[in-house]
Amino acid sequence: MGIDSRSGHKTFLYEAIADEIAELINLGTFRPGERIPSVRQMSRQRKISITTALQAYLTLENRGLIEARPQSGYYVRSRLPASLLEPNESTPSPDPTQVSKRELVMMVMQDTLNPNLIQLGAAIPHPDLVATEKLNRIMAAVARQAGNISGMYDIPPGNEALRIQIAQRAVATGCHLAPGEIVTTSGCLEAFGLCLRATCNPGDTVAIESPTYFGVLQALESLKLRALEIPTHPRDGISLSALRFAIEHNPVRACLLLTSFHNPLGSLMPDDNKKELVRLLAAHDIPLIEGDVSGELYFSGERPIPAKAYDRKDLVMLCSTFSKVLSPGFRVGWVAPGRFKATVEWLKYTINIGTPTLPQLTIARFLSSGGYDHHLRTIRRVYARHMAQLSQAVMRYFPEGTRITRPNGGFVLWVQLPDYADSLRLYRQALQAGITLAPGYIFSATDQYYNFIRLNAAFWSEDAEPAIQRLGEMIINMKC
Amino acid sequence: MGIDSRSGHKTFLYEAIADEIAELINLGTFRPGERIPSVRQMSRQRKISITTALQAYLTLENRGLIEARPQSGYYVRSRLPASLLEPNESTPSPDPTQVSKRELVMMVMQDTLNPNLIQLGAAIPHPDLVATEKLNRIMAAVARQAGNISGMYDIPPGNEALRIQIAQRAVATGCHLAPGEIVTTSGCLEAFGLCLRATCNPGDTVAIESPTYFGVLQALESLKLRALEIPTHPRDGISLSALRFAIEHNPVRACLLLTSFHNPLGSLMPDDNKKELVRLLAAHDIPLIEGDVSGELYFSGERPIPAKAYDRKDLVMLCSTFSKVLSPGFRVGWVAPGRFKATVEWLKYTINIGTPTLPQLTIARFLSSGGYDHHLRTIRRVYARHMAQLSQAVMRYFPEGTRITRPNGGFVLWVQLPDYADSLRLYRQALQAGITLAPGYIFSATDQYYNFIRLNAAFWSEDAEPAIQRLGEMIINMKC
Repeated sequence: MGIDSRSGHKTFLYEAIADEIAELINLGTFRPGERIPSVRQMSRQRKISITTALQAYLTLENRGLIEARPQSGYYVRSRLPASLLEPNESTPSPDPTQVSKRELVMMVMQDTLNPNLIQLGAAIPHPDLVATEKLNRIMAAVARQAGNISGMYDIPPGNEALRIQIAQRAVATGCHLAPGEIVTTSGCLEAFGLCLRATCNPGDTVAIESPTYFGVLQALESLKLRALEIPTHPRDGISLSALRFAIEHNPVRACLLLTSFHNPLGSLMPDDNKKELVRLLAAHDIPLIEGDVSGELYFSGERPIPAKAYDRKDLVMLCSTFSKVLSPGFRVGWVAPGRFKATVEWLKYTINIGTPTLPQLTIARFLSSGGYDHHLRTIRRVYARHMAQLSQAVMRYFPEGTRITRPNGGFVLWVQLPDYADSLRLYRQALQAGITLAPGYIFSATDQYYNFIRLNAAFWSEDAEPAIQRLGEMIINMKC
Repeated sequence: MGIDSRSGHKTFLYEAIADEIAELINLGTFRPGERIPSVRQMSRQRKISITTALQAYLTLENRGLIEARPQSGYYVRSRLPASLLEPNESTPSPDPTQVSKRELVMMVMQDTLNPNLIQLGAAIPHPDLVATEKLNRIMAAVARQAGNISGMYDIPPGNEALRIQIAQRAVATGCHLAPGEIVTTSGCLEAFGLCLRATCNPGDTVAIESPTYFGVLQALESLKLRALEIPTHPRDGISLSALRFAIEHNPVRACLLLTSFHNPLGSLMPDDNKKELVRLLAAHDIPLIEGDVSGELYFSGERPIPAKAYDRKDLVMLCSTFSKVLSPGFRVGWVAPGRFKATVEWLKYTINIGTPTLPQLTIARFLSSGGYDHHLRTIRRVYARHMAQLSQAVMRYFPEGTRITRPNGGFVLWVQLPDYADSLRLYRQALQAGITLAPGYIFSATDQYYNFIRLNAAFWSEDAEPAIQRLGEMIINMKC
């Protein structure tokens, strides 16, 4: 979207301007410490209102890219110093491995229920940034009007009103889906499980990113599937050449990838990579189970397109959820399972007959009520700011040798600690200090990420800064 | 409870009297067509009020055991004629078999969504007899008050308020459970799946009743488990001698039984059988996955005790749900998994992280509000009457050679048609006539119940009588 295109929606204009300035900063046109044009200059240059220019600058400030200096104007912030590199591309074991980290995962999840802990662990959204309160009100209204409908089994494919809303929104992401191609689920992990069971038998090998979301690894373990971990780039996600090699040398039955704002990497596969991924897997007749959980949480530019948009063989099974953007506790997700739809529906029936009715009706009404886009714009801005602030705190307090990712969406930060630091030891020490984090061990079937941690930026606030400082001290103390 | 024990709770007195008279009818003290003592006589004999005596008689009338004749008094109804025998004990194949009836099952389930069909198929409760309207009101109140709680993952073991209510009610059934021993689920089928996965590996053999609930067979198929079908008695349930023989000659890894008001048999295992079952399985260290789905829906006497009450080795995994008595669409069930609790919790996490929060809170509040027992008493009476009326309609319209079960609880009737009748053909013909039923094929991995159907009594009304008549005609026509 061009910034001088006044034909675009007015609401987005300041965002487009902010994006362009952000790009200029990334390209080095404006460098750290340099002053950028004043609000008034920008207003004149671009023929936009002062308000719009100011909004654009506040957006950039929220993203941590610029800062206001009193009586002087806006300056490009000191970016991440050269000493805080990104993690290298990952180099997992080339062989499939058995997974087993279940106790640790259950501990990290249990931590989320402890209100006394500073929540830097599980990737749960901040209660103030989900739509829970609004959903509660809608739920109350829906429940009063539901009559017998709420009492009936909503057997697969699940609630039609919800599937219509999902299909309509999918069009905007480049995926042309009919409501009849969608199956509702109790969240995205259930969708992953259904897809894995529809495509694999116990003992089969599934290619995944390394590192990846621990829920995926646990699902693989519970289904007795073997994880083949593929190297990743911290910004672009899975290495396609490594995936190609892996497919040619292993009996890969399915591929499960988090293509946009990966958890824990925050990586976003470029469009060309997604296109090539779909082509590669189709050539080998390997289904792609695509998790698009955080795609809506982009910090700048446009919403990423899922790989499903390039699917011509009905081989991509697109899975998503409303947990990260609306509310986890409603447990509403979905899958567009392509050619495996009949099997997925049957499997969904065999695990719990159907998804509860009222939560589906509630999400459907929220989506149709029109407040969704506004909600998304708000939380994108806040998470972008939180991510910038968390990153800066890590830079400030963590020791030399620390590396961090540069996510452009979502709310998790992947941190590589110096070699001497053990993330499990850190997890335990942090718990004593009232802080929970996700130790790197649980993001791989092996222990290769022993010195990594994932930090959740969702709960960021000024109160959390001392927690990061405390973690930094613990890490430094591990050197001795 | 003795009928002259005035120390008992007043509310139950008429039920106790009704039970005693029912027993006298069963024993043949009062025989079909005979007059029983008048209300006034009964009041005098038992030293009870006229109202209480009348209530007892109305209860018996509702159960279809007696009928009022104007100006004359109450008479024992013509019971099931000698020509309508119970089905014989079942004689399934002695070898484990692969299961595959999925398309048919999905069709029968889809039928439940068609409001134009007369619902004699899937075992869904009648909308007027579930607590959906009341639950909707509670849901509205709970949602308004929930705040952030409704938005949080309710990770295993699940909502504590609900687990406390479940534990309290379990005490009344002879099961001493702590809230910490319970895991909430999305219905009972999910609980079954978790238990099967916690105890078995793909390829393992599971002993089940023959016939059994098709959801169980589908779960076994989807998990690649082998079903070992054990003969049953139409009133007492599984044959323990057959089970013993099966265990001694097969590598049985787990046993999944519906012990009280079995689906589709309606059978109730006698207490001694349950005790012996637990002892037998414990001796072989085989876990019992016990489904207690309809235990609350007893027509007379007291609530059946689950086999779990006799468990001394934490080997019984008790599974239940609120679907049949409160509302299916809320999808709230539970399991007390004994020694397998940690694994069940982990598996529950891997399939969908947790059960949705608000439905759990709603059921918990309903249970604690005190209306549950009253609700149960009401639906027990109605289902008893529906069952009697459905049975009588089948007797009236189905051809000679038909046999039916005599359930003392639940709402499904298992009907053995003459040898020449094919239940799948009947299912298809019935659909054309706007009637859905459950063909016998789906209740076994083999086709041995080709000439059986399961009829759902929940939707019984006078309008349904012509449907039974129609089915009877279709069956008779199959003879030619």
